[in-house]
Amino acid sequence: MQPVIDYLKQNQSRFISELCEYVRFPSVSAQPEHRQDLHACAEWLVKHCQDVGLQARLCPTQGHPVVLATTPARKADSSRRPRFLVYGHYDVQPPEPLDLWKSPPFEPRIEGRSFFARGASDNKGQNLAHLKAVEAYLKTGTGLPCDLTFVIEGEEEVGSRSLASFLKANRAELGCDAVVISDTGMPTPKHPALTYALRGITALEITLRGPSRDLHSGIFGGTVDNPAMVLCQLLARMRDKRGRITIPGFYDDVQKLSAYEKKQYARIPFKATAYQKFLGAPKLFGEQGYTPLEQRSARPTFEINGLTSGYQGEGSKTIVPAWASAKITMRLVPNQTSARISRQAIQYLKKLCPPTVRMGIKPGHDAEPYLVSPTSAQAQAALRALRSAFKCEPVLLREGGSIPIVTDFKKILHADSLMLGLALPGDNAHSPNEKFDLDCFAKGQLMSACLWEELSRI
Amino acid sequence: MQPVIDYLKQNQSRFISELCEYVRFPSVSAQPEHRQDLHACAEWLVKHCQDVGLQARLCPTQGHPVVLATTPARKADSSRRPRFLVYGHYDVQPPEPLDLWKSPPFEPRIEGRSFFARGASDNKGQNLAHLKAVEAYLKTGTGLPCDLTFVIEGEEEVGSRSLASFLKANRAELGCDAVVISDTGMPTPKHPALTYALRGITALEITLRGPSRDLHSGIFGGTVDNPAMVLCQLLARMRDKRGRITIPGFYDDVQKLSAYEKKQYARIPFKATAYQKFLGAPKLFGEQGYTPLEQRSARPTFEINGLTSGYQGEGSKTIVPAWASAKITMRLVPNQTSARISRQAIQYLKKLCPPTVRMGIKPGHDAEPYLVSPTSAQAQAALRALRSAFKCEPVLLREGGSIPIVTDFKKILHADSLMLGLALPGDNAHSPNEKFDLDCFAKGQLMSACLWEELSRI
Repeated sequence: MQPVIDYLKQNQSRFISELCEYVRFPSVSAQPEHRQDLHACAEWLVKHCQDVGLQARLCPTQGHPVVLATTPARKADSSRRPRFLVYGHYDVQPPEPLDLWKSPPFEPRIEGRSFFARGASDNKGQNLAHLKAVEAYLKTGTGLPCDLTFVIEGEEEVGSRSLASFLKANRAELGCDAVVISDTGMPTPKHPALTYALRGITALEITLRGPSRDLHSGIFGGTVDNPAMVLCQLLARMRDKRGRITIPGFYDDVQKLSAYEKKQYARIPFKATAYQKFLGAPKLFGEQGYTPLEQRSARPTFEINGLTSGYQGEGSKTIVPAWASAKITMRLVPNQTSARISRQAIQYLKKLCPPTVRMGIKPGHDAEPYLVSPTSAQAQAALRALRSAFKCEPVLLREGGSIPIVTDFKKILHADSLMLGLALPGDNAHSPNEKFDLDCFAKGQLMSACLWEELSRI
Repeated sequence: MQPVIDYLKQNQSRFISELCEYVRFPSVSAQPEHRQDLHACAEWLVKHCQDVGLQARLCPTQGHPVVLATTPARKADSSRRPRFLVYGHYDVQPPEPLDLWKSPPFEPRIEGRSFFARGASDNKGQNLAHLKAVEAYLKTGTGLPCDLTFVIEGEEEVGSRSLASFLKANRAELGCDAVVISDTGMPTPKHPALTYALRGITALEITLRGPSRDLHSGIFGGTVDNPAMVLCQLLARMRDKRGRITIPGFYDDVQKLSAYEKKQYARIPFKATAYQKFLGAPKLFGEQGYTPLEQRSARPTFEINGLTSGYQGEGSKTIVPAWASAKITMRLVPNQTSARISRQAIQYLKKLCPPTVRMGIKPGHDAEPYLVSPTSAQAQAALRALRSAFKCEPVLLREGGSIPIVTDFKKILHADSLMLGLALPGDNAHSPNEKFDLDCFAKGQLMSACLWEELSRI
């Protein structure tokens, strides 16, 4: 390993130049005028993978191409070696609003250890770190203990529209023991992190219809139910004073936090007052018996995302509105399933709905929650790699949002994902002045180099 | 009285021709291009009042002019005679949509006993009926038992913007023992009606603010209260299962229905199934212990007129919304006051509001409820006049809406209003193919003629 470590150390300035080349492509997947830029970026990446020593090619999709690169085929015994898949994406968020950038988004600027550019941390810097690690193995002739496949797509910022079909079409070639993704975050430079769980989601739209049209509230008010009031009374009953969701069976499948996980949560730096100030809310509120960090990642929720009824303009309009509707999403945690929770919610809403209105429910999108056991051999190996590279004790994170590709990897490739994110909270992902910390870049390369040793040893 | 009755009978066809002249003016107060038409209509009306034998003049206002007409001054003793004010309006609703009219809105058409034209029943036909009654007295030389003042304004359909200041400016001249208004309705041709009470109203707009911006429901959801949920939980508590408003003190000042009123309500023709079908609601709903007719006119309400929060477009947006708001109006009944009810509602909302959101409340417009005792001498006199003219037993009505001019008459002239409406439910007021029943026109004239005798006798 020492030659690998030395190689990485000696080549940092060249790596930074290469990251400069990479981020200069305005590979904005959401904007059709950048189609050619995405293609050019993908071609640059194929060439770069080849220069590193990988076998690489461009794979066309219905949308932007996927870059597929693998470590060189070995002559014998290769069937018995572990194989891992590294996922990343070369597309970026739109840079707008441009006037908020201190320097042009596609012209990198380095200030201290901060590398500013659109895509710096999300995700070009992070996937380049993994490529640099494998380069160090290949260029120093150090034997890799495993086979690696890189899948770097161009549509992550627009919902990974072509990824599932790409995985299905190349299932055999992509088979692996685990997927490694560096596209999440770490709380501070001293808290490298393994994200081991994600929340799922299920969406509903509820519409209550009363009278056939808006009615004059003077002439008719008092004789007919008000759909907006019924909606409020229904939704009010979905959550109690202690912040618990009251849908029968809602918590049945929730996997409780283990003592180990609770202990890990306690190690994550968090200040409630600073957090509340950041949110701008007059007071924090969540399910009783859990800390805010637990509430936002390990506990399910029922959120009203939108309410619509009656008159919404200036002043007043004296009507009993004909209808009222609400957009709802529920965040799910392991081992809830979107189908069951959606069914339970619909049943409960229907049960509570009075006969004075007609209820319509339209189920929306969903994603399953995800968890890889933090005490599994792979997770522990990942923690050792983080510890070696960052020289401090890593933390274990659950993420409150959903990352649908992770469930795709599980469903299609039957592989768990190890999320080893290198972005810091201040890196401005999706915002103006996106940056990447060059220490995270260097330590990320080292982590990747260590990771293959650790993962292959188990 | 017999000469008056005979005169009315003998001149019906001329009266209908005069109504034709009157409705040909497109006196649409809401449309600025009809300003001249309103003026021409008012001038025609002054001339008509003079032809009838009244002293009449045009009174300019900030908006459209008021027509003021009085019975001729008597030489002696006139200070001891009772005086009544007849209110009406010569402006009309816009006729649009024109394509739904079977004949042009300002070209009257008679079909059987129906007189079709914009303004036919609302309000030209009704105020002309009163003018024809006084004409019958004056032209037959029959002594009127009272003095009469006609106030026919041109801004009723745009909120009577100039009326209050006109009343204030002419307070002495307009002083009277009661105001007579024929601008409401009667349930069927066999149910002439005295409307003796109106509901009031008070409006509120509630806004709850939580986080300083919409938050990602995955990353932050579970740690911060959802203003839309808080709004639902607050509003849900304003009304119980029995349809009772739960604001403390809300019913304190409500005047209970007397046995006499209850009996009168029972006489009003009403079919719940037909009513429900007309509203299009799956089921009627109102405060337990009251009939629908009572619920919509004699009981106060709390209605949500509009709800707004978060995302309202297609599909879903996974946010905890920064704010949520509701537009509320409460209908009030005698002897509630808008100031007290508004204060009680605000106090209760503030008491229930949790510290996790900031509440803002903006009071809106209001109008006081109104009631003239149905057993008062004036009301009973009005009932006798209806009975004589229509040859059937009149009903007593409470109206669920508010008519602000009635409270203006009470406040400024200290006079009660007797609402003796001649419009039928199918007269399409404010809609295409507005009509007036020519029997109601004739019987209305007779009722007016009897009314002055009955009112002056008490």
